[in-house]
Amino acid sequence: MTLKDFKTTKERREYIEKTLKIKLEKIAQIETDEENIHCENLIGSTTLPLGVAGSLKIQNSEFKIQNYFIPLATTEGALVASVSRGCKAINLSGGSTSYVEEVGVTRGPVFVTSGLKESFEFKKWLDDNFNLLKVEAEKTSSHLKLKKLGTRIAGNYVYIRFYFATGNAMGMNMVTIATDSISRLVELETKVKCIALSGNFCIDKKPAWLNFISGRGKRVWSEVILKKEIVTDVLKTTPEKFFEVWLSKCMIGSAMSGSLGFNAHFANIVSAFYGATGQDLAHIVEGSIGMTITKVLENGDLSVSVYLPSVMLGTVGGGTKLKIKQEALSIIGAKNSVELAEVLGGAVLAGEISLLSSLAEGTLSCAHSKLGR
Amino acid sequence: MTLKDFKTTKERREYIEKTLKIKLEKIAQIETDEENIHCENLIGSTTLPLGVAGSLKIQNSEFKIQNYFIPLATTEGALVASVSRGCKAINLSGGSTSYVEEVGVTRGPVFVTSGLKESFEFKKWLDDNFNLLKVEAEKTSSHLKLKKLGTRIAGNYVYIRFYFATGNAMGMNMVTIATDSISRLVELETKVKCIALSGNFCIDKKPAWLNFISGRGKRVWSEVILKKEIVTDVLKTTPEKFFEVWLSKCMIGSAMSGSLGFNAHFANIVSAFYGATGQDLAHIVEGSIGMTITKVLENGDLSVSVYLPSVMLGTVGGGTKLKIKQEALSIIGAKNSVELAEVLGGAVLAGEISLLSSLAEGTLSCAHSKLGR
Amino acid sequence: MTLKDFKTTKERREYIEKTLKIKLEKIAQIETDEENIHCENLIGSTTLPLGVAGSLKIQNSEFKIQNYFIPLATTEGALVASVSRGCKAINLSGGSTSYVEEVGVTRGPVFVTSGLKESFEFKKWLDDNFNLLKVEAEKTSSHLKLKKLGTRIAGNYVYIRFYFATGNAMGMNMVTIATDSISRLVELETKVKCIALSGNFCIDKKPAWLNFISGRGKRVWSEVILKKEIVTDVLKTTPEKFFEVWLSKCMIGSAMSGSLGFNAHFANIVSAFYGATGQDLAHIVEGSIGMTITKVLENGDLSVSVYLPSVMLGTVGGGTKLKIKQEALSIIGAKNSVELAEVLGGAVLAGEISLLSSLAEGTLSCAHSKLGR
Amino acid sequence: MTLKDFKTTKERREYIEKTLKIKLEKIAQIETDEENIHCENLIGSTTLPLGVAGSLKIQNSEFKIQNYFIPLATTEGALVASVSRGCKAINLSGGSTSYVEEVGVTRGPVFVTSGLKESFEFKKWLDDNFNLLKVEAEKTSSHLKLKKLGTRIAGNYVYIRFYFATGNAMGMNMVTIATDSISRLVELETKVKCIALSGNFCIDKKPAWLNFISGRGKRVWSEVILKKEIVTDVLKTTPEKFFEVWLSKCMIGSAMSGSLGFNAHFANIVSAFYGATGQDLAHIVEGSIGMTITKVLENGDLSVSVYLPSVMLGTVGGGTKLKIKQEALSIIGAKNSVELAEVLGGAVLAGEISLLSSLAEGTLSCAHSKLGR
Repeated sequence: MTLKDFKTTKERREYIEKTLKIKLEKIAQIETDEENIHCENLIGSTTLPLGVAGSLKIQNSEFKIQNYFIPLATTEGALVASVSRGCKAINLSGGSTSYVEEVGVTRGPVFVTSGLKESFEFKKWLDDNFNLLKVEAEKTSSHLKLKKLGTRIAGNYVYIRFYFATGNAMGMNMVTIATDSISRLVELETKVKCIALSGNFCIDKKPAWLNFISGRGKRVWSEVILKKEIVTDVLKTTPEKFFEVWLSKCMIGSAMSGSLGFNAHFANIVSAFYGATGQDLAHIVEGSIGMTITKVLENGDLSVSVYLPSVMLGTVGGGTKLKIKQEALSIIGAKNSVELAEVLGGAVLAGEISLLSSLAEGTLSCAHSKLGR
Repeated sequence: MTLKDFKTTKERREYIEKTLKIKLEKIAQIETDEENIHCENLIGSTTLPLGVAGSLKIQNSEFKIQNYFIPLATTEGALVASVSRGCKAINLSGGSTSYVEEVGVTRGPVFVTSGLKESFEFKKWLDDNFNLLKVEAEKTSSHLKLKKLGTRIAGNYVYIRFYFATGNAMGMNMVTIATDSISRLVELETKVKCIALSGNFCIDKKPAWLNFISGRGKRVWSEVILKKEIVTDVLKTTPEKFFEVWLSKCMIGSAMSGSLGFNAHFANIVSAFYGATGQDLAHIVEGSIGMTITKVLENGDLSVSVYLPSVMLGTVGGGTKLKIKQEALSIIGAKNSVELAEVLGGAVLAGEISLLSSLAEGTLSCAHSKLGR
Repeated sequence: MTLKDFKTTKERREYIEKTLKIKLEKIAQIETDEENIHCENLIGSTTLPLGVAGSLKIQNSEFKIQNYFIPLATTEGALVASVSRGCKAINLSGGSTSYVEEVGVTRGPVFVTSGLKESFEFKKWLDDNFNLLKVEAEKTSSHLKLKKLGTRIAGNYVYIRFYFATGNAMGMNMVTIATDSISRLVELETKVKCIALSGNFCIDKKPAWLNFISGRGKRVWSEVILKKEIVTDVLKTTPEKFFEVWLSKCMIGSAMSGSLGFNAHFANIVSAFYGATGQDLAHIVEGSIGMTITKVLENGDLSVSVYLPSVMLGTVGGGTKLKIKQEALSIIGAKNSVELAEVLGGAVLAGEISLLSSLAEGTLSCAHSKLGR
Repeated sequence: MTLKDFKTTKERREYIEKTLKIKLEKIAQIETDEENIHCENLIGSTTLPLGVAGSLKIQNSEFKIQNYFIPLATTEGALVASVSRGCKAINLSGGSTSYVEEVGVTRGPVFVTSGLKESFEFKKWLDDNFNLLKVEAEKTSSHLKLKKLGTRIAGNYVYIRFYFATGNAMGMNMVTIATDSISRLVELETKVKCIALSGNFCIDKKPAWLNFISGRGKRVWSEVILKKEIVTDVLKTTPEKFFEVWLSKCMIGSAMSGSLGFNAHFANIVSAFYGATGQDLAHIVEGSIGMTITKVLENGDLSVSVYLPSVMLGTVGGGTKLKIKQEALSIIGAKNSVELAEVLGGAVLAGEISLLSSLAEGTLSCAHSKLGR
């Protein structure tokens, strides 16, 4: 008997318990929302503590202003408190502003030719037949549009990067299906063979300069001008000290480390936000890439902004289908994935502000001792 | 009234429900294990579906052989089935072998001097007084040892990278406290000022070449020789096709993309494993770095191995304290964090084998359509 | 008296000789072609030994086939012999094929705005007024066309990457003048201030993923199918061994080292070619980036190709104006900079083939001992 | 008849002239110092204009202060004038300070094992037998010491990085011969096969994070405190504007471009210095890596420093044997390679100061127009 031979979650769990002589009481306790779960060999569910930061005042690129609560799933003490402190400083300064550019979800198959000559002919064929590929791709789902493609030739190997609009879904699954369909058509028409549906020119769930430079999913920016007195009163530091920490840590320190993350801790906020709202946790990798920028203004106020070049998230599909994730999404109340990304941008900004302040005042360790991370 | 003014999880949740006119029934349902949770503004818990892959036969560096079930928390359809398929191929080939090297958990403060002269004197002082720092660090916790330090000078800025042994804990929290204590002592003795307790020379939760090259936490290797007939019968491809997919995707494709991940999908397995076992989800970032290597042997068999240079995990402390995470850990049954890393290595290996096979045969899209990712 | 106070090369040289009590006889000996030299405080000329490799048979993308001698300026023993050996193997296999794509020479100024809102408005203005900028740029030189621009926003900072066609000149100088002119116009029209004419988004003479991914100057590819018997007879190795060296060195080894050069020694050939033909030696940096790809074909032959994504060179202007550089260019006989790049591609290919063979047979060290590098 | 069939430089040159119907008068004119040249198929020499910048006042780490003239071989107008202007600003501020750390010249062979088990045993053998390897290496040359080795395991592949002290020689050639000797001994003793004497874990003449992080050859630092009035009077800008250009260009701009060069134009000075003094021009690649750091001090003065982590140069051997290169070296008058690196550091610092000032004042384009780059 193996796990696959059992029919129900309960049977599988009991098999594990019996085989290993252990008890899985907590795992058993949770009602599993099975109709929305896509996970094989299911034995139950595990949990993540859910806190709420904010509210945070955000103005989007259309000048709509709104206050958002931010659900964060984390086991790291101090994180929710820290983001909340950042939100407070932002709100008292008049709120943050978020901008989102939809780059498109990418999938990058690799094809093999007989050599450079065929590689260049193949590239030309792809450019000439873009509309054919677009029609083929869009047959696979009404939720998806093929936006553009990029090609890179390395001898016999041709890498294509397809960019898709996927509406409010993160969309990797539909994009994979569409790329499969395109690739089969391309093989049929050109006789050039597809080696792999993903040739890592996507590049999915890996830290990569291609995602930093060309973007993936959505590019997100968020910004605030922190009033000087808010920096001193709420954040207990000064704009100058804040700037010095940022410069030595996020810029020089990251450069010395060969990093793609020129920031304080994007990954903490992205992971807690994704965990709460049902995003694919492996996309935390792309979310850790990006930059924080600070500037002491002439009047002594402090400008802080964040730039996340490859944000992969959605409000429908995948893990967001779970009822418990829909509840967390309802706390945010975003009407679409762009608005969700705007809120993520604001949350990341709040997190950066709080941690950089804490480092500037030397209180990071205290906070962790007290809040018991 | 703000969230911080409420005393209980229930009050906070009800405040959110009332304020936003929403219902958080699922979030409310879960018993929250509050004595072990470190999360502020708690309103309840969220869930992740929990599947089990395996069992997987692993031999560790001391030649101990054992079968492990692998709990994986994921909302991505096909992932658990895929890892299980990889496990099957590995088991039928005689099992995998894992190796772990404990590099140490790192924290990297940044100090500022008056210039190069003082920077070099400061570096010398640090080297000469290592034992003093070690004693100071180890006063802060009996679970921690200071192993070594590295220094990097950039003009006025001096970056130190402390490496700590943290027993079975992932240990970032104790390491931060110890580094704080060291830094205060260093300031006192040398009059050189610490700008920030973390100067991103750690480098924590960011993709960075420093972690790839010098390692962080644990370096993990895992390997299997897949018999030729297992590749054809179980994985439905050939060693040669598998190799070609690996070469064009993980090596050439990753190189063309400027990636630190020369692999197929480390992040998927690392995130599901971390989600199940209570690790810090932001450390998925470091876990996505690394390399898969394959080789068709002279007898036609296929050697596959994975190398993860910066694995941050533990069996005690942090999120692992939650009872539900202890249950998942009991499924694995690792007696310490090294064994846990060995199992992670095997799971990642199984995941790579299955996905690369699936790409080689062009069935990735089908699997996803069917298993509804 | 300082160097600047002297009028002639001879006076300056004698001042140095007298001041330092040294003799500069060799430096004095060379007739200096002063009307074409742009170098301040000139005291004479220095030399580089000039060898010739080849000839090499190259077919370009328009199917024109020609044999080229390749002048190489180097002090490294074995280099010219090695490239010649590569040429021989290529010629005996029917010749190489080169492809060139003109990406454009880039210059990337940085502007500063009052914040994200203005940054996005500024970006829009740039896109809307591309033709205005194009006209302004093209006023500065009849040899230059503005092809396109890319913009990247980082908070207050806006980076623009202008791509120019510069005919047969490498063109950095004219591109700098054109960008200066554009930037002044942009400042005038938008009131947004240019901080620096180059904000390293060019990115000039630095190793950078932006150049690898988006290209700079010219992208160059070159390829050959080496017949199996040529590999054994001329190169003294086998296609399989050659492939194994390439895989372990250029791919896995480069990946382990965090390199942007997935090749054996592009820089050696690029530096010797640039030194001979009057290119800017600092552009060797961009020329060291790129990839070699090899593949053992089904019939046992060996496909080898190289890909250089950022080749900066010209046949007119800059150092090519020196008569002695024109002589070296006349050895190649390229009618324009595209053809010159095609020959560079072939030379680099020959160099890769020879070194990888030498490593495969373990004769590298011998060659160097004998030819006395 | 091919080039190899001719005996003398003159015969080869005349063969080329006759075959191609061209004249190589300038190339013919230079007396070629043939006894010191290592270049096959020699047809003569080419030239580079030689200017002198400085003098520059440098204090080394042993507090010795000296003025140095800096020979620079370049065809780029404005470069020598620019470095000289930087020297002037430095001298008027009291001079610069240079520090050098000898990391060691590296060579990195790759070996192949039967799998992880043997890879780890092999690594242990290497560590246990370091002295054996050291003795073997040092038999090959009295000028060389094996300092240490680092090992990296990637499945079947084991990469070793040997670090050698090479006295005053750059030393790649002797290091290659020593590594060959070590590798043959290792093969003999362990039966583990060396695939390639260089497995790109050196990593030679390629931009790579390994060189940035672990260093190669020599690490070089140089620093100056520019007095506020010198910045305004000599450099025509202000410390604040200088800092703003540096921050937006060298830090944020380089980060946005995925660069390993966080500087303004290291490569320009390194290439001109290497061209003048007989260094291997392909090592300009490593010299372009590194960072400039600036800081406005509390009294309004400006601290500027440079950090070059991988400087490969020498005062003996290779191209430095040419008499004309010895003349240029005599202009500098460095007694050893460490002092030569100290001067390079100062020259690079001067170059950074001048270009960043020029950008800050918007005069870059003018300088180039006037000095006719």
